[in-house]
Amino acid sequence: QYSTGVRRVTLIPGHGIGPEITVAVQKIFEAAKVPIEWDEVDVTAVRGPDGKFGIPQKAIDSVNANKIGLKGPLMTPVGKGYRSLNLALRKEFDLYANVRPCKSLEGIKTLYDNVDVVTIRENTEGEYSGIEHEIVDGVVQSIKLITEEASKRVAEFAFQFARDNKRKKVTAVHKANIMRMSDGLFLRCCRELATKYPDIRFEERYLDTVCLNMVQDPSKFDVLVMPNLYGDIMSDMCSGLVGGLGLTPSGNIGKNGALFESVHGTAPDIAGKDMANPTALLLSAIMMLRHLQLNEHADRVQNACYTVLREGKSLTGDLGGTGKCSEYTNAIISKLN
Amino acid sequence: QYSTGVRRVTLIPGHGIGPEITVAVQKIFEAAKVPIEWDEVDVTAVRGPDGKFGIPQKAIDSVNANKIGLKGPLMTPVGKGYRSLNLALRKEFDLYANVRPCKSLEGIKTLYDNVDVVTIRENTEGEYSGIEHEIVDGVVQSIKLITEEASKRVAEFAFQFARDNKRKKVTAVHKANIMRMSDGLFLRCCRELATKYPDIRFEERYLDTVCLNMVQDPSKFDVLVMPNLYGDIMSDMCSGLVGGLGLTPSGNIGKNGALFESVHGTAPDIAGKDMANPTALLLSAIMMLRHLQLNEHADRVQNACYTVLREGKSLTGDLGGTGKCSEYTNAIISKLN
Ligand SMILES: CC(C)[C@H](C(=O)O)[C@@H](O)C(=O)O
Ligand SMILES: CC(C)[C@H](C(=O)O)[C@@H](O)C(=O)O
Repeated sequence: QYSTGVRRVTLIPGHGIGPEITVAVQKIFEAAKVPIEWDEVDVTAVRGPDGKFGIPQKAIDSVNANKIGLKGPLMTPVGKGYRSLNLALRKEFDLYANVRPCKSLEGIKTLYDNVDVVTIRENTEGEYSGIEHEIVDGVVQSIKLITEEASKRVAEFAFQFARDNKRKKVTAVHKANIMRMSDGLFLRCCRELATKYPDIRFEERYLDTVCLNMVQDPSKFDVLVMPNLYGDIMSDMCSGLVGGLGLTPSGNIGKNGALFESVHGTAPDIAGKDMANPTALLLSAIMMLRHLQLNEHADRVQNACYTVLREGKSLTGDLGGTGKCSEYTNAIISKLN
Repeated sequence: QYSTGVRRVTLIPGHGIGPEITVAVQKIFEAAKVPIEWDEVDVTAVRGPDGKFGIPQKAIDSVNANKIGLKGPLMTPVGKGYRSLNLALRKEFDLYANVRPCKSLEGIKTLYDNVDVVTIRENTEGEYSGIEHEIVDGVVQSIKLITEEASKRVAEFAFQFARDNKRKKVTAVHKANIMRMSDGLFLRCCRELATKYPDIRFEERYLDTVCLNMVQDPSKFDVLVMPNLYGDIMSDMCSGLVGGLGLTPSGNIGKNGALFESVHGTAPDIAGKDMANPTALLLSAIMMLRHLQLNEHADRVQNACYTVLREGKSLTGDLGGTGKCSEYTNAIISKLN
């Protein structure tokens, strides 16, 4: 799918702390001689011909050409006519699988030390359909949309991901006891795909039970696949177990493209002060390298990052350290070998 | 609302371990001279005139007469035509607020020692509307129904609960950034009620953020109010933080009745072996005493139970002990003072 040699990657620095954490990743990749050429574009909401705000055409063209991108946090203005640009990007490129690995990191103290799970979230429909009506005054319905097509492709993605990454088990997370038809359909698709991956263990669990078991013993889980909203919740919860959104990467994968992003906010209060933590964006960029099959580069940068975290020097304030973003970046560079 | 003197309470022992944990609670209440007379009824699915399975009329009549009940776990047969009897009961009596307190217990070792939150879950609509359709082959919609009426009454319940229980803060949990109309309506109702309770702090948070923050620092939260499914998830997650469903009570409250229940399963594998842990049902029964304004009785039984948990003797197997259900029960009785 991707050419060898130098890869061109769309880069969306984003807002707030976005530009500085983006520079950090660029510096580290440059020092590591990662064969990537960045195609930087701005994604700030623009008013389209239909009067609605959306993604600038230049950014769309760039992702369409490169088929791969890295993105920092985006600010979505509040008010009518604006929709989340993060969601708009996932939709525009039909990035149907959202992959969020959460792994306990040496050097990052949390209550848990045995987390190693990957949430695979259906990224295009479900509770995020955007279809809502006010039936009569004070009575609103929102539609959760589940299709066989979208359920099968994300289920297939989850099993294939498990196989490619030498994972042992896929858990389908659902509330088919309540939403019998919609979650029932999702679950049936997972069961069907499970039969095609006999090398991967399959289990199905209720969402509430998974939440309970996850906080008690995360080592019970491996790869999890679920409808959109459940994935939104579960991935944040798992992120909390290993230290928060500043430390967990994310990838949105489609048939014709992939976009890797840190999912934390723009943190306007510390923007421009060289205080931001670039780890989530860096780990997302490392996921991207693996997606591009640049595994050796990925391992090398990841080892450097893990070493700095483990040694605990030059860490940024949110990680309990006193380092600046640039110091942390240089520390990682110094550990490249 | 309730007569003084002896109170008549509907008792639904339920299935599996239900009967034995019910006996445990009855014994403890008898020893504590709690002024309650039990009206025991069986709730096993029966086929109604419409051919569907439902709750036996005798049980319905009993709850309607007593307006208050205590219930063990119910087994819902799997198969077409059956719906969860737990849900059927909540629906039948319009028990619109589900209250689930989760508090760290001395003697129960978990990763957390500072949990003290109460989830107030809208109990009648939302994702549990039961309205689903297959639009075309392989395309299903489930309807999340949010009404102003139900949202306001549960919001009011939450604020009043906070005030009555000397709680400081109510957090409305939502995804109104995604489900703008439905969760938006829910949120507006919470905001409106907040203005009527100036003595209670109010905040609004995204569901995913609450999940993340809850596992990192539960002391950030106090009372939480939210739509049905979110409450299902959140209450189980919080239960996990303090030791699981065997240790957390639940109450379903309506205008004309209230039903207190343990929300764990029927555990058929250990049923009848004097191995079950009655704590969740006992704590639910204690919530019921407070609802009946029998606060002194509630305190007395609660202290006895907490003492036994703290001292750690005679605990049942799921709590890491070797005690039988009957031994644990007697230990609690011996601590009544
Ligand atoms: C920002 C928000 C719209 C988004 C979501 O709800 O999906 C975020 O929580 C995420 O997980 O990427
Ligand atoms: C048994 C099930 C239908 C129920 C629910 O989903 O509400 C349970 O999980 C609960 O929380 O009481």
